[in-house]
Formats: sequence, C-alpha cells, structure tokens
Amino acid sequence: MSVTLAIDAMGGDHGLIVTVPACCDFLEKHADVNITLVGDADLIRQALDRFPKAPTERIHIVAASEVVLMDDSIEIALRRKKDSSMRVAIQQVKNGVADAIISSGNTGALMAISRYILKTLDGVDRPAIAAAIPNEKGLGTTMLDLGANADCEPMHLVQFAQMANVMVQVVEGKQNPSIGLLNIGEELIKGNEVVKRTGELLRASSLNFYGNVEGDDVFKGTTDIVVCDGFVGNAVLKASEGLARMMSGLIKSEFNRSWLTKLMAVFAMVPLLRVRKRVDHRRYNGAVLLGLRGCVIKSHGSADRISFGFALDRAYEAAKNRMVERIAQAFVTDRLL
Amino acid sequence: MSVTLAIDAMGGDHGLIVTVPACCDFLEKHADVNITLVGDADLIRQALDRFPKAPTERIHIVAASEVVLMDDSIEIALRRKKDSSMRVAIQQVKNGVADAIISSGNTGALMAISRYILKTLDGVDRPAIAAAIPNEKGLGTTMLDLGANADCEPMHLVQFAQMANVMVQVVEGKQNPSIGLLNIGEELIKGNEVVKRTGELLRASSLNFYGNVEGDDVFKGTTDIVVCDGFVGNAVLKASEGLARMMSGLIKSEFNRSWLTKLMAVFAMVPLLRVRKRVDHRRYNGAVLLGLRGCVIKSHGSADRISFGFALDRAYEAAKNRMVERIAQAFVTDRLL
Repeated sequence: MSVTLAIDAMGGDHGLIVTVPACCDFLEKHADVNITLVGDADLIRQALDRFPKAPTERIHIVAASEVVLMDDSIEIALRRKKDSSMRVAIQQVKNGVADAIISSGNTGALMAISRYILKTLDGVDRPAIAAAIPNEKGLGTTMLDLGANADCEPMHLVQFAQMANVMVQVVEGKQNPSIGLLNIGEELIKGNEVVKRTGELLRASSLNFYGNVEGDDVFKGTTDIVVCDGFVGNAVLKASEGLARMMSGLIKSEFNRSWLTKLMAVFAMVPLLRVRKRVDHRRYNGAVLLGLRGCVIKSHGSADRISFGFALDRAYEAAKNRMVERIAQAFVTDRLL
Repeated sequence: MSVTLAIDAMGGDHGLIVTVPACCDFLEKHADVNITLVGDADLIRQALDRFPKAPTERIHIVAASEVVLMDDSIEIALRRKKDSSMRVAIQQVKNGVADAIISSGNTGALMAISRYILKTLDGVDRPAIAAAIPNEKGLGTTMLDLGANADCEPMHLVQFAQMANVMVQVVEGKQNPSIGLLNIGEELIKGNEVVKRTGELLRASSLNFYGNVEGDDVFKGTTDIVVCDGFVGNAVLKASEGLARMMSGLIKSEFNRSWLTKLMAVFAMVPLLRVRKRVDHRRYNGAVLLGLRGCVIKSHGSADRISFGFALDRAYEAAKNRMVERIAQAFVTDRLL
C-alpha cells in the first residue's frame, strides 16, 4: 500500500528551500511514497529543477495562490486566505487524495484550519498537540497538550492520554506505553483539582497509568507519555527550548573567548557534537495534531532539510499504520468516560 | 544595626555538615551578623568545635529535639513534631529575637509551619515562593509562584507581582523592576481566562508591567520578574532542573567514553567550568517565602556549603533592608485590588 503525503510547500521560515529538498530525499528513501507539493506551482517547479533525479512520477503539484504567514492571526488564516498552501494541503486529506498533511507553518492556523476542514473524531472533545521530547534514555517522551488547550477539564486530559496511547503504539511501535500525569511535588495548600480528578479517572481506566510525574520526569523518561494541559505543556516546552539555547550560547561564547579557548574547542568538538546529536531536537521534529479526522503533522517553523525529513518520517509512520483510524477505533471500543 | 539569622541547623539532605560551616564562613564575612543555630545542641557544639576561630560571642544555640524529615507529610511536621528545629527556628522570628529564618528542609512543611506561626500579611491572601533563575544576561529572573499555590485567581497573581516587585528592589537593589506574566504564544482556542484577567489588572496597576512573556523569556531575561501560578511555575522549574541535569550528565558521559575523550576533557575543562559558573544554580540558592509576617528563606535541600552561603546572603539582604515591612507597607499604600 502506497502512502501519499500532502506538503504545505510554502510554510515555515524557509518554505521551498527546505520542503522541496527534504521531500526529494524522502522519495529516494521510500519507494512506496507519493508526494503532493502544494503552493506556487512555478516556484515549486523551479525548486524541483535542482533535483533532476527526483522520481517525477511520484511527485504531484497542486497550485495554491496564498501563503499563511507566521504572524498571521487565526482569523486571517482561516477566513481570508482561502487559497493558502496550508489550507489546500489539508483539503487533500479531506478529499481522500492524501494520507497525511505536513506543514511548518503557523501552529495556531494549522490547528484552526484542520479543525474547520477535517473536524474532530467522535468522542474527542478537543484536539491536542503531541510531540516527543528527548530524554536521558536516548528516547523521546511524548508530551501533550503543548498549547492547543489552555483550560482543560479532567475528561479532556483523559482523552489526551487515550490518543497518545495509540499514537505511541503506532508511531514508535511501543506496546502498552506508560502514562504519567504532570503534577507538582509539593502539595503545600492543595493539589490542582483538575489533576486530582484526572488521576482518579486514569487509575480507573484500562490505560497503563503510572501515576503522577513532575517536570524533571519528562527528561528522565520516567514514562513514555506525559499528559498535561496546553498551558503548562507550552510553558515547559518553551522554557526548555530557552534553557537549551542559553546553554549552547554560553558554551559557544566561552569557547570563543580567546585563541586559547578556540584551540580547546577543537579538542572538545567531538564529544560536544556527540552530545548535541544525542539530544538533537531535529530528530524529534514533527508534532502530531491528535483527535482530527485526518493525519496532520506540524513541523517546527525553523526546521531545516534534515529536520523536515524527520517530520515526514513521523507522518509516514502515522499514515502507514493508520493512526487516525486506530484512534477513532479506540474511542469506540474503549470508551473511558 | 545588626542582623540576627535563625538557622534550622538540622534541615536539608546534609544538615549540620553544611549549615554550621556555611554559617561560620558567613560570620567571618559579616561583622554585623548574629547567628542562632537551632537543633541538637550537643551535635551543634561538636560541629562548631571544628571552627575554633568562629566568633562564639555572635553564635547562639537554641535546642530543639526533633527534625522534620524531607519526606514527612505536612500533617506530621505541623501537628506531631512541635519541637522540630524548623519550627523552633521559625519561632525565633515570631518572638522577635531573629530577623530571618533559613531552612534547607521540606518546602511544604516550611511553608505550612511558617503560615501557622507567623501568619500572612494584611492584604495578602496567599503566600508564594519566589526564586531567581539564572538567565542569558548573567542575572537572575525572579519567578513566582514556584509551588505553593496550585490554583490561583487573578487577584492572587497580582499580589504575587506586587510582593516580588518589593523583593527585587530590596534584595537585588533594582529600582522599578519589570514584570512579565507567563502566557502561551499560541492562542489556538482561547487563552487561559485567569491569565487574561490578570493581564488587565496588572496593566491598570502602578507596577512596571511589561505584558505577556513565554517560557523561554525566563532564560532570556526579558523581564526582571515572571509571574505564574504555582503549578506552572513548579513544572517549569523542575523541567529546567531535569534538562540541565540531563545535559551535564550527557557531557560527562561523552567525555568519559575513552582515554581520547578524557584527554579532550582536560582541554575543554576551563571553558566548560566557566559556563557552569555562569549558570551555577548555587549562586541563586535561597527561595523567598513571600507574604508572611516574617522573613523565611528556603535553601535547596541538597545545598552544599557554598550554596547555603548564598541563601544566607539573600536572608541577610532581605532582613537588613526590611523586606517584610516594605511589602506590608506596599499593601497598605498601593492597594491594587
């Protein structure tokens, strides 16, 4: 069975410079993949010209005249730009001519347009954004929600757990993944009421619920999945990105202080690059918008060619293993609420 | 004017091994400081014996027969251990014979006993935990609440901002510090309602309100203060600690791989140690329990001698500059709510 991926070719900070080369790399690796590039047809053809060996019979171009910008409001993206590359790409999935859509564009717009066009699955109240975060074990801890839902009720968090449970089985091939509920260690006054109730519901469910975890457990890899509301998830994710950026900036600046430290950098390079490789966020690129009637993958806005390739991998695994159908099925057979 | 610091000498992972040497160092640096060591009097005397040059006339010992353990419940710490070193140390502040109390013990117990004995200031609904987190600018971003209040109303967050505003002026000597409100970037569905309303209140206040910030702004140092509820603050803090631990563990393990990388480590040592120094969490030790009728400082449970010294510094600055009185005053003269 072949898989067709629809690409918002214009999306992200770099657009075609990243999307087209990454897609050509991907087609070379996977003989069972077709790719539909959506955007400015002339520019896409120009970008493809640089890859004369690309399998043109497996590349389709669908024209779209507009682009959702990174700072466009959801209102603009959803109501005004009806012929955006993002929207037309999502429409490919809706029309059944693509199995997944991948975009590096504006997250808010991607979620809003996907919800509008694809709709949510039966039993899912709110779609969520899930992504893998590198942990000490050299694996990824799948965390959700990362920003789609600022205020959550217990039943929403339980649904997130249920969706991620299927996603990790499908995309990472891990059977019966363990699920942690993000909570705080100190119960000085009282725990968060929503989290307490969620814990009770998860404990009573058929899921492999580990119990409460704390912020550092995300990086320890204590559980395969960490569930939290989108406000906390987004704050933790952004803070971690900020800390990682600060650390690597400091390391660079210290090694750049003088000719002596620059010389030291030459010696330190190999181990430090290996560290970077082990926690390379590019390997974990590709957040999954869960709960929609279609497979939607969000690549980081600043993704490069390598990084976008990992998002394509994730889309490919999810599509090939029928992630969406299996989530839909789970909500029919294992009604937790 | 001299300053008297009451020390929970038994608290933390290391107890007397850390607290007594750090206090002797501190007394040597500050001629205007008296220290009251609270705990097992015999053991304290034994620990002091190793510091024959310590100024005994400025060291007082107050006996306490019990110790709050790191995993004691709040119930146990508060109701059963009425002669704990933590509680007796707090009582010194209540009795007016000490200007501040410093403990490396159990945070939950410290907050609960402090609230019970000292009570909260007029106008403060809930005490909060504030600490400085190292940022890119080489300064500390003061963040609160870090775990005392899992569910917050807008007025609580405004009170946190008001207390931190005084704290940063007093402890860091920074006039009119800027205040950021932690929020999420993507407003996919709707922002968190509590945060939206808090933003309106802060905008209307006399505080130097910068506006919304995101998780990475904590490490960028975009504002001097970042306000959030205790659930989010605790999750961000713990996740950051986890990430930092993972990174330093990875760096160590990569440099330990072979004799070659160990040799490389020798060359890389100086710049890497300088990085560590620039973000040394020990320099930022000493969280402040704000909103109480007394100055209470929480040192990290695993604090070493150097680190505990920084917590003493913070207590000294807060006590000397009458932080508590100035917060009390702020709530009388600038009633924001």
